[in-house]
Amino acid sequence: MIRKFVFGTPINTDATVLHIPAEDPQDIGEVILSGDGSELSCKLEEQDIVYGLGEQVRGINKRGWSYASNCADDPLHTEGKHSLYGAHNFLIIDGRRCFGLFIDAPGKVCFDIGYTEHEKMLITIPEPDYVLYYIAGASVTEIVREFRKLTGRSYIPPKWAFGFGQSRWSYMNEEEIRELVREYRDNGIPLDSIYLDIDYMDHYKDFTVNEEAFPDFPGFIKEMQNERIHLVPIIDAGVKQEAGYSVYEEGTAENCFCKDSDGKDFVAAVWPGKALFPDVLNPKVRVWFGNHYKELIDAGIEGFWNDMNEPAIFYSEKRLRKVFGQIEAYKGKNLDIKSFFEFKDLVGSLDNNPEDYASFYHDMDGKKVRHDRVHNLFGFNMTRAAGEAFDRLAPGKRILMFSRSSYIGMHRYGGIWTGDNRAWWSHLELSIKQMPSLNMCGFLFCGSDIGGFGDDTTPDLMMRWLEFGIFTPLMRSHSAQGTRLQELTRFGNFTQDYARIVSLRYMLMPYIYSEYMKAALKDAMYIRPLSFEYPRDERARTVEDQLLVGESIMIAPVYQQNALGRYVYLPEKMKLYRFRSECDYDIEVLQAGDHYVKADLCEVLLFVRPDKLVILSRGAKSVSQINTNQLYLMDYSENGAKYDWYDDDGVSKTYALPQNWHTVCLDEKGTVSIGNYEGMVNRI
Amino acid sequence: MIRKFVFGTPINTDATVLHIPAEDPQDIGEVILSGDGSELSCKLEEQDIVYGLGEQVRGINKRGWSYASNCADDPLHTEGKHSLYGAHNFLIIDGRRCFGLFIDAPGKVCFDIGYTEHEKMLITIPEPDYVLYYIAGASVTEIVREFRKLTGRSYIPPKWAFGFGQSRWSYMNEEEIRELVREYRDNGIPLDSIYLDIDYMDHYKDFTVNEEAFPDFPGFIKEMQNERIHLVPIIDAGVKQEAGYSVYEEGTAENCFCKDSDGKDFVAAVWPGKALFPDVLNPKVRVWFGNHYKELIDAGIEGFWNDMNEPAIFYSEKRLRKVFGQIEAYKGKNLDIKSFFEFKDLVGSLDNNPEDYASFYHDMDGKKVRHDRVHNLFGFNMTRAAGEAFDRLAPGKRILMFSRSSYIGMHRYGGIWTGDNRAWWSHLELSIKQMPSLNMCGFLFCGSDIGGFGDDTTPDLMMRWLEFGIFTPLMRSHSAQGTRLQELTRFGNFTQDYARIVSLRYMLMPYIYSEYMKAALKDAMYIRPLSFEYPRDERARTVEDQLLVGESIMIAPVYQQNALGRYVYLPEKMKLYRFRSECDYDIEVLQAGDHYVKADLCEVLLFVRPDKLVILSRGAKSVSQINTNQLYLMDYSENGAKYDWYDDDGVSKTYALPQNWHTVCLDEKGTVSIGNYEGMVNRI
Repeated sequence: MIRKFVFGTPINTDATVLHIPAEDPQDIGEVILSGDGSELSCKLEEQDIVYGLGEQVRGINKRGWSYASNCADDPLHTEGKHSLYGAHNFLIIDGRRCFGLFIDAPGKVCFDIGYTEHEKMLITIPEPDYVLYYIAGASVTEIVREFRKLTGRSYIPPKWAFGFGQSRWSYMNEEEIRELVREYRDNGIPLDSIYLDIDYMDHYKDFTVNEEAFPDFPGFIKEMQNERIHLVPIIDAGVKQEAGYSVYEEGTAENCFCKDSDGKDFVAAVWPGKALFPDVLNPKVRVWFGNHYKELIDAGIEGFWNDMNEPAIFYSEKRLRKVFGQIEAYKGKNLDIKSFFEFKDLVGSLDNNPEDYASFYHDMDGKKVRHDRVHNLFGFNMTRAAGEAFDRLAPGKRILMFSRSSYIGMHRYGGIWTGDNRAWWSHLELSIKQMPSLNMCGFLFCGSDIGGFGDDTTPDLMMRWLEFGIFTPLMRSHSAQGTRLQELTRFGNFTQDYARIVSLRYMLMPYIYSEYMKAALKDAMYIRPLSFEYPRDERARTVEDQLLVGESIMIAPVYQQNALGRYVYLPEKMKLYRFRSECDYDIEVLQAGDHYVKADLCEVLLFVRPDKLVILSRGAKSVSQINTNQLYLMDYSENGAKYDWYDDDGVSKTYALPQNWHTVCLDEKGTVSIGNYEGMVNRI
Repeated sequence: MIRKFVFGTPINTDATVLHIPAEDPQDIGEVILSGDGSELSCKLEEQDIVYGLGEQVRGINKRGWSYASNCADDPLHTEGKHSLYGAHNFLIIDGRRCFGLFIDAPGKVCFDIGYTEHEKMLITIPEPDYVLYYIAGASVTEIVREFRKLTGRSYIPPKWAFGFGQSRWSYMNEEEIRELVREYRDNGIPLDSIYLDIDYMDHYKDFTVNEEAFPDFPGFIKEMQNERIHLVPIIDAGVKQEAGYSVYEEGTAENCFCKDSDGKDFVAAVWPGKALFPDVLNPKVRVWFGNHYKELIDAGIEGFWNDMNEPAIFYSEKRLRKVFGQIEAYKGKNLDIKSFFEFKDLVGSLDNNPEDYASFYHDMDGKKVRHDRVHNLFGFNMTRAAGEAFDRLAPGKRILMFSRSSYIGMHRYGGIWTGDNRAWWSHLELSIKQMPSLNMCGFLFCGSDIGGFGDDTTPDLMMRWLEFGIFTPLMRSHSAQGTRLQELTRFGNFTQDYARIVSLRYMLMPYIYSEYMKAALKDAMYIRPLSFEYPRDERARTVEDQLLVGESIMIAPVYQQNALGRYVYLPEKMKLYRFRSECDYDIEVLQAGDHYVKADLCEVLLFVRPDKLVILSRGAKSVSQINTNQLYLMDYSENGAKYDWYDDDGVSKTYALPQNWHTVCLDEKGTVSIGNYEGMVNRI
């Protein structure tokens, strides 16, 4: 049951898709409103868990910290931070009572969840023009489903996008990429995509290609497709200011960019230097910007990632002038310690400065809206521009799309990756904890940069991260300029071990794809915390480092350096598969309760729930080569079990076809049958 | 057995105290030397654990990362860092063979421990003038003992320094401190010391006191002593350049400061603005600088902390001029993205710049030595200056001393705190893992800033950190300017819970002090990893989050947000005391093996080993009020047990007095007797 309350004069965010009549603002249950709606508060009882907030720091239970929805290009994701790249204002309070709140507000929102006072949650909306949704339900799962109906079906990528992707900032030219593909193929490492970071462009100009590096881009795309590799280029939010550059010229002529207070185009520096920001909050501009993806689609591209769309700003001319002016003053007066730190802070505050965000404007239905009031909608609408364009340009075809910045609603147009994490064990752990929170908010297609983007990775971290990454829908290794090279062939003896781990992903693909699609089509979650499935199990409620992947699998990733195993809590008896490769594994049945489970560096722990089935392929070196005419079954069933297996062509949008659904039956005698299926299937 | 090898022409670091004849450099066992000694390498086998390196990032087992001994004032202790404040070049490789290495080199040393190649350790000494010690032994414990004999007895603080200390950057004046003491006493929070951070000084001038804030400093010290509170002032490495300031004037006149390449005093900015660095590597200067502590000792001060002694440099005039010059150039040429990042990096690299460290000189035995070649000795020798002075100024009396920067050898003169950590759960975990590594290297008196120094703490983090902190010899809460106030009275309802936790420290004091003193007097470790005690237990070897505290106690701190318990591995059966307060606890006997143990937010888990005894007091509000005539015994013994209890006056250095030692006997019938003791003792 969803109740809707409107405060002030909200800007329509398009986060939701359901029409719900609004009620007069009032205290709801235990949620107490301040007069103008700028504060919502509620008492937290000892047993309450607070779930939600999507992409954020810290644990699955958000209690004990304060968060801010304020999309930020901040590459240092430490526990002390309050914002990352997304703004996902959905949370659930689960204790004696259970309810969800969605604060549909496009500006900054602050969540003090037992930070100032351990027993109190206080949500602050500094600009109280927003819509509040209160969602009641019998369980967390039910509330999530209601919320997802409210906000619309999650984005569905093409099937190949579930394959392993290799990225680097940046692969610089054709030859480098050819060599990479050769190395992966030679070493038997499955691979479906290679990501092109900013250097594939001509001087970081959106929708251009550096012709020196890629003299025949369509030809090269084709060549890679023949190798079953999809090239996935990055698109940045800022459009280079350069006379003669068509996107810039058109955008200026057609009034497509955000304006400064004088009504002139707002200019700020990002990768291409001085750049302008398409006013994607304006539908006309979305059409214009979106149409530009056509140039790359026509060349053969089938997927993109949208970056720098918080939007990130390195500096604005105005602030840079101001800073240089102040530096001049410091120079004269013989710096003392106070002025030295002021000087350092001044320089440090050039990028992503709130002053800049308050100095440009959008045109929303003819109304001038200052950016900071709708800041969190930018990334959403840049990705929406692409998504809407794909529907026009390639109707019926799925195009891969994921974004760095996001707001609830964007989950209908694309996935996300968790941005510029680091090669830290604690970031592997963080990424484990982020996945269910993102799923709750509708972002099903997500993943973190495997191995870590910033800082130098290590062979063992890479291994453990892959062992988790094989379960995330987006499975991509990515790393920053200047860090240790982290392709899977860069770590000597480990190449074959990595190849074996990645192969497990392809073995699991029928199950992963089926479970992803079921979550998307049924407004459910692909990855869940244990507590969502076992809500009355007090122990399960506190587990933050084990996850349910789909209906049949529980995972318990190892995320500690030099660990040779880990503790696992089983809410019910399960069958543990300890995989070293597709063909090399052992099986152990474990009773409900606590276990210390060994896991050597190259071993993946996979738990199958009782009376559940996992459908497998034999594996392959790319998604298109997976043979679904020869399937295998992993099961833990004594009395037979059933599984609804979803599969489709992986490209079109004909999700509703009845032939996409198959019922897998394992009877009491151990005989397997799959309805509506002509291939072979065997238990392993 | 210790073997010594000399490479090149080493500078004498005074790290060691034993005379050992040097052998000709050669490959030793599996350690392979490069020709000039600049590289030491050895193969790491699968089961090898590498212990050591003292104050460093990451785990107890140092495998899987690269480290550099290069004392650094870096307030962001993330996994990606290579250096913290100390340089502790001692490590032990423990596997099929077991040996220790101590690289006694005063400049930078790099340790690639399975980072580049998972199975290889490579130690690089860029300036190969050093002494290498190879220590063989039957066990890790034996190697540590040998190493500690080599490097001399660890520093012993006065007994009151084991009490709880409250710190903040900064308590600004007498009244603020009076109020603090009042609040602690009113709330029954035990307290023995209050730390004075940099603002107690007059314009950050060492050995001065801000007379406006402290109009009668000796009187105020006395007043606090009457309240059983010790004031502990900070001393910084840099001496303010200010005409008329006696320390500056004297130091200049007597040629006591480090020189630049022209032989003029080297000037760089730190807290007081332009400052000079006492050349503490010169014995004459140590006498001069050390004598200045007298002014504060005469005023009644009995303890100090030495800070900024890496030494930290905010900027040098020379580099600042250079940076401003370059900024000028940027201004002219209309910044592009490349020059923008150069500009930002330039400003970011002003502090602690290697160029500055390579631009000043020490006078060592009449020889001009460039600072960077002996960089890691600075903090050591600043603290040594104090320690040597205390022996002259207050012979026979213990003075509290701990330092931020350190080198092996400094452990004879003072303890350390782990510097500017943050209010992160992961830093509570880091501090747990740092303690045994520091103990190995001789730094027994150490602790981390409880609650975290930087960033904002939370009530629950504070609680869990205190629950660990009651076991560290230095137990101090400290936090930075601008962060949330974190005195124990600042968190509403939690004050009484905090008071109960801190009280446990005072209850445990007889044991903690006895175990500390035994470790110091016998070249042993106060805090050890499980693997040191149970070397043949494969599981114990991988445990990094449980520690042995002295001979009788094992601890398993909870360091995860919102956790209500944790897993514990017991290498042998133990008796678990779950303390809520001195009087409120429950007891459970747990068999060897794995356990999930509940621990509510206010509960401390303490495990007593079989046939071991823990001697307790009734607790008190300050160390001097602890009544050792009424003792209690915590034990887990079925057949009786013995314990060597050490106690002394806590002030003098008469450690060898026979009356300091008492044999506590628990016989088979449960009767307790303590030799050479007239008080009462009861089992609890």
